[in-house]
Amino acid sequence: MSSINKVVLAYSGGLDTSVIVRWLQDTYGCEVVTFTADIGQGEEVEPAREKARALGVKEIYIDDLREEFVRDYVYPMFRANTVYEGEYLLGTSIARPLIARRLIEIANETGADAISHGATGKGNDQVRFELGAYALKPGVQVIAPWREWDLTSRESLMAYCETHSIPVDFSSAKKKSPYSMDANLLHISYEGGILEDPWAEAEEDMWRWSVSPEAAPDQAEEITLTYVNGDITAINGEPMTPAQVLERLNSLGGAHGIGRADLVENRYVGMKSRGCYETPGGTIMLKAHRAIESLTLDREAAHMKDELMPRYANLIYNGYWWSPERKMLQAAIDDTQTYVNGEVRIKLYKGNVIVAGRRSEDSLFDESVATFEDDAGAYDQKDAEGFIKLNALRLRIAAGKGRDNR
Amino acid sequence: MSSINKVVLAYSGGLDTSVIVRWLQDTYGCEVVTFTADIGQGEEVEPAREKARALGVKEIYIDDLREEFVRDYVYPMFRANTVYEGEYLLGTSIARPLIARRLIEIANETGADAISHGATGKGNDQVRFELGAYALKPGVQVIAPWREWDLTSRESLMAYCETHSIPVDFSSAKKKSPYSMDANLLHISYEGGILEDPWAEAEEDMWRWSVSPEAAPDQAEEITLTYVNGDITAINGEPMTPAQVLERLNSLGGAHGIGRADLVENRYVGMKSRGCYETPGGTIMLKAHRAIESLTLDREAAHMKDELMPRYANLIYNGYWWSPERKMLQAAIDDTQTYVNGEVRIKLYKGNVIVAGRRSEDSLFDESVATFEDDAGAYDQKDAEGFIKLNALRLRIAAGKGRDNR
Amino acid sequence: MSSINKVVLAYSGGLDTSVIVRWLQDTYGCEVVTFTADIGQGEEVEPAREKARALGVKEIYIDDLREEFVRDYVYPMFRANTVYEGEYLLGTSIARPLIARRLIEIANETGADAISHGATGKGNDQVRFELGAYALKPGVQVIAPWREWDLTSRESLMAYCETHSIPVDFSSAKKKSPYSMDANLLHISYEGGILEDPWAEAEEDMWRWSVSPEAAPDQAEEITLTYVNGDITAINGEPMTPAQVLERLNSLGGAHGIGRADLVENRYVGMKSRGCYETPGGTIMLKAHRAIESLTLDREAAHMKDELMPRYANLIYNGYWWSPERKMLQAAIDDTQTYVNGEVRIKLYKGNVIVAGRRSEDSLFDESVATFEDDAGAYDQKDAEGFIKLNALRLRIAAGKGRDNR
Amino acid sequence: MSSINKVVLAYSGGLDTSVIVRWLQDTYGCEVVTFTADIGQGEEVEPAREKARALGVKEIYIDDLREEFVRDYVYPMFRANTVYEGEYLLGTSIARPLIARRLIEIANETGADAISHGATGKGNDQVRFELGAYALKPGVQVIAPWREWDLTSRESLMAYCETHSIPVDFSSAKKKSPYSMDANLLHISYEGGILEDPWAEAEEDMWRWSVSPEAAPDQAEEITLTYVNGDITAINGEPMTPAQVLERLNSLGGAHGIGRADLVENRYVGMKSRGCYETPGGTIMLKAHRAIESLTLDREAAHMKDELMPRYANLIYNGYWWSPERKMLQAAIDDTQTYVNGEVRIKLYKGNVIVAGRRSEDSLFDESVATFEDDAGAYDQKDAEGFIKLNALRLRIAAGKGRDNR
Repeated sequence: MSSINKVVLAYSGGLDTSVIVRWLQDTYGCEVVTFTADIGQGEEVEPAREKARALGVKEIYIDDLREEFVRDYVYPMFRANTVYEGEYLLGTSIARPLIARRLIEIANETGADAISHGATGKGNDQVRFELGAYALKPGVQVIAPWREWDLTSRESLMAYCETHSIPVDFSSAKKKSPYSMDANLLHISYEGGILEDPWAEAEEDMWRWSVSPEAAPDQAEEITLTYVNGDITAINGEPMTPAQVLERLNSLGGAHGIGRADLVENRYVGMKSRGCYETPGGTIMLKAHRAIESLTLDREAAHMKDELMPRYANLIYNGYWWSPERKMLQAAIDDTQTYVNGEVRIKLYKGNVIVAGRRSEDSLFDESVATFEDDAGAYDQKDAEGFIKLNALRLRIAAGKGRDNR
Repeated sequence: MSSINKVVLAYSGGLDTSVIVRWLQDTYGCEVVTFTADIGQGEEVEPAREKARALGVKEIYIDDLREEFVRDYVYPMFRANTVYEGEYLLGTSIARPLIARRLIEIANETGADAISHGATGKGNDQVRFELGAYALKPGVQVIAPWREWDLTSRESLMAYCETHSIPVDFSSAKKKSPYSMDANLLHISYEGGILEDPWAEAEEDMWRWSVSPEAAPDQAEEITLTYVNGDITAINGEPMTPAQVLERLNSLGGAHGIGRADLVENRYVGMKSRGCYETPGGTIMLKAHRAIESLTLDREAAHMKDELMPRYANLIYNGYWWSPERKMLQAAIDDTQTYVNGEVRIKLYKGNVIVAGRRSEDSLFDESVATFEDDAGAYDQKDAEGFIKLNALRLRIAAGKGRDNR
Repeated sequence: MSSINKVVLAYSGGLDTSVIVRWLQDTYGCEVVTFTADIGQGEEVEPAREKARALGVKEIYIDDLREEFVRDYVYPMFRANTVYEGEYLLGTSIARPLIARRLIEIANETGADAISHGATGKGNDQVRFELGAYALKPGVQVIAPWREWDLTSRESLMAYCETHSIPVDFSSAKKKSPYSMDANLLHISYEGGILEDPWAEAEEDMWRWSVSPEAAPDQAEEITLTYVNGDITAINGEPMTPAQVLERLNSLGGAHGIGRADLVENRYVGMKSRGCYETPGGTIMLKAHRAIESLTLDREAAHMKDELMPRYANLIYNGYWWSPERKMLQAAIDDTQTYVNGEVRIKLYKGNVIVAGRRSEDSLFDESVATFEDDAGAYDQKDAEGFIKLNALRLRIAAGKGRDNR
Repeated sequence: MSSINKVVLAYSGGLDTSVIVRWLQDTYGCEVVTFTADIGQGEEVEPAREKARALGVKEIYIDDLREEFVRDYVYPMFRANTVYEGEYLLGTSIARPLIARRLIEIANETGADAISHGATGKGNDQVRFELGAYALKPGVQVIAPWREWDLTSRESLMAYCETHSIPVDFSSAKKKSPYSMDANLLHISYEGGILEDPWAEAEEDMWRWSVSPEAAPDQAEEITLTYVNGDITAINGEPMTPAQVLERLNSLGGAHGIGRADLVENRYVGMKSRGCYETPGGTIMLKAHRAIESLTLDREAAHMKDELMPRYANLIYNGYWWSPERKMLQAAIDDTQTYVNGEVRIKLYKGNVIVAGRRSEDSLFDESVATFEDDAGAYDQKDAEGFIKLNALRLRIAAGKGRDNR
């Protein structure tokens, strides 16, 4: 066991990470620095201060990172219309590089030589935290208690608490959801419990952020989103910060039963896993961004983006936000967003996100060319013949030489 | 003008292609063979026989191609989860290669030296018809009246009819939709009219195949789809042919307000155009196919498919079905579908297609590995450390040499 | 025929473009502005002035664009290790966007409403000139005489000269090479003549810039190239401008029999064509750039570049330099070159470009990790087990479920 | 330590793997089965039998796998024009899946529950062996002595031999090359020693299979290769098996100084490493295959292959031959080779592989279209105008709306 003097822990204030504080102190004989961030998970972060103090922690960091999270991570990701495996909006994945970055910044500030987190050894989050940490501070040590200790059940954790006099809020511990959950401004996720059977439907009372489409209002609601350089800057004409935008869209989407996903995904560590996600705001953002791009983005740039997107999604899912290849792709993506400006009108209704209209000063839609009516010579239909003939030439030559193109 | 003896025309029996029959006879002094196909557009094809005969056509082909269409074109396309520009399910595009193929087969049977169609010079369909025709019969001549004649308005067409004694069903001609439409078993499309303003919402009475989500039943309906090698072979346990599957899904989807899309797309000929589409069955198929793949497809094969898909969609959209590159991609796609077998449970509700469960004898989901509970040693969490460390190595070396990975 | 007032012609001073001057004046009754550029083709450009004047041209542009050509076109292209179809270094293609740009700039300066060029209707160059022109000045008219006139043979051109009193240097006209050639600082190309038989070998006396490997010196020559941000800034320690670098490398490479290529390529207009190319400097640059990247570029960035390269090469070959998709890719490529600094030692010998060594302050090669000797703990071999096991997990699960991975 | 009964070892007969036999017997108390393959490494394999017997091995497998190696691994790989990172022909990588497969087949035949190999914990080969083994027999145990034992130096290995009475051929041990080498019919590789300094040039006497270009004959040699479905079936008209082809090309190439490569590559385990390779036959094959494809392959299929190739190379380099994604790509690649038939004439001269001609019954080169002479109407130059205009349309619209396409 390498000698560790001080470790920065991503600390939620909950049972698991409280046990980790004590376990780190005991196992490594080191000082623990806690870091608790508000990234919009919907729980107070301030109570973590008192809990950390009670565990003997002297250096306690509590940050509100909501704006940074949406501005520097969520927004860039949505510029690429990012979806993992056709369904998952990467709500958990995109928060991890921010946490990793802050852990390392705090390690540098406090002179810590290690970081620690409460992610298990089967999941993607350990990879995302640790790849980020190593990329930003190559000599850092990483302690992943769930890969090391033998507290593999809830019961053993509780016993550890008792033995080590860690105060447990038993009422909340008992209420504990049967699901493993993660939340931030972009989404809330559920895994485990009955979801481990992919044939079983999620129970209605699992979902926390959205009503079901059935329970949503019978009346559609229409909103207008304003885009500047690919990012939403206003809702219904009201300018907002990135985090405000996402908060508002979450509340609108959730009320209309929007953004639930139930899927089986492929983890980076090699297994398939079932997850349910609520991403109300993100679901609206994806649809609306595609709509404004459809009007303002060049065809070939759009197609190139579509082809690169799965790679980009993969990088984020796998934890390579802080990597040269992600930055390289981001440079390409951002380069395309200069003209992605304008407005999208969206109808929200019982789980549906319906594009009702889009307009832009930078529109490339040219009615005079596209019209079915007389175009006054804007487009010469005779050009199409040459276009087709030359595009067909290689196929004709092949067929002429006897190849069967069927 | 090259000398033409006989031309095979894709003939709908409607006003436009009736005019084309006469125009071809007059302009080229050639014999016209008509070809009318039932590909599920929802209109009787048999009446085309009498109309063609009245125009003096001697060789009249009327085919029911519905099964062939779904089996050999729609199904292969859906194996790839094909979507063009994130939204369009390619309903029109995928029917064109079949029409092109039949045109050429009939040209070969009847000894015709040319083919003709009623597509305009601004759209994609002319490209799709003609690329297909040239690929299958390189010496064929193509006559595209809309690129040649001066009958550029409805009025001039009507006048032509009068002059040339072409019988017009004026009642139907008057009822004519303000939209340019195309339909087959996979979808119905609308272009033109008020849709030429991308900010304007489509009027409710435009849609023909689906009720609006608002008008759909308040009660969800659940169906089970059976997959064999990536294709649906049964609904609710009842074995069906491909066309039967799609017909049933269209009727189910349409009743539940599913499958409407309103989008701006990039045409191959270089302009943006606004289109509205109803693809009720296809929308269900896409979602369900992804669901069964999520359980049965290897991760890397799935990701490769996702990366290749936009290319494949592009090929179909642009009219390159009959090309070496499409076949090459199809070989890769089909190779992945061997184990895409099983069942998907789908809930249909007011525009939503909700995956409620998926199961398969060929599932790669391994509960013993994926579980949050004790996995009895099926997965060694310690392996994750080495996995992460080696994946991080290049980033650590770079950071260690002073590079800033932010 | 649309009315044209003034046309800017890409004018070489040779027979063909001299005929075009007169033909434009006669056919369009318009004023002709000539533009002649030195892009390193190895011929004097100044004589073009007198010839143009003799043809009655009043506005004559003669530019030395060599530095701009290499700095803004050749260098950016080589950052991507660009090769078309595995063999062609794009020497002709990369010069066209520069010419197109200058044609349009001059059109804007002189108030011309059209541009013209001497490229034939079968080749790629017409496409490259015209796509560039349209992209930079969408309303410009383009006159491509070879697609319009009936002067399809050398004899008819000569006859035209006689009829129109165009002075012809008959001695040089007679000496005319049997090949169609194009030259600039990056390369010289040969097409036509006996090359139209792909089984026939090019004759030794065709080649102009390089000796044959057989005729090259028996003694190898070693040079050192210095890279800064992916571009060569010095040879053998001597700082040079981009054009100076390429000139020197051409002379070095040519003397050592380096850079000949003989290939069959696929033109954008749909046919295959045989071409021979001499690219002495470019051949050295490609090899050396890969060598310095091998030391300094991150693996995943390098692989992404390799995957994007064929697309990028295609864009340049097809004439889409001035397009959003090219700029998007360039942004990604350039983003990777920050650390591509250092030196490469190259041996030139009878057609061979041999990398003898590479070093860099920004090297990512870490001897302490890579060594076969004791690495003092820099790398923990035990990490490999976990790395392999998790990478194998999906394959093991599949095999465990009975799939045959062979 | 899990209990192991019998282990199949990839056994060379050399010092290292001899030590491993004994170490496995001692450490695991298990029976060892040796497997020695002739894959063209150029050393007798039969002597391994006696050595194994002397070590108490009862089940000894010695296979001649040369034909299988070239036919089922090398040839399929060359159909894709596979090169890793622009330089490396994957000589080592492509042999590993064959070894892995035989190890598992023998494990199944002999009832062994484990396999073992002599690859180190820093390299790619451990990954390739083990990914293959796990993919083909998911429950197999893998013993990688170099990751487990403490015999980290040559001295400790020798001491182990002495202690355990393992007979060592000291004369050969002393002559041992300072390089770590690997050889098979496709190549021989060198790593370590002075190569660990990327600035240092390899010494001339390191190279074993080829003379230097300087030492090669002053006279070029011309050969003709016959291709059927993308594979070479004859040299100079003489039909040969795959292994015979490669042997002959190795000898021809080696004699003419062809196929040396000196490069820095990125290992899958995360570090850069310097390697030198001799691949005489493979270097000829790559060039010749591209040449025959240039004549016979459709443009778009060729471009798709070029774009997929780096992925395919990566899969082979990283050890994923036995994976669904490799098979998927192979299906696409093989689909393109139907018409890759014909002959290539190649000149070999002092390190150069020069294509002197290519011809094919399946040539797509159409002289009547491509010619600079009068084409008698085979190609209508006027088609080019429409082709260019429609390809330019999106750029013109953008520029017309005020976008700067520079």
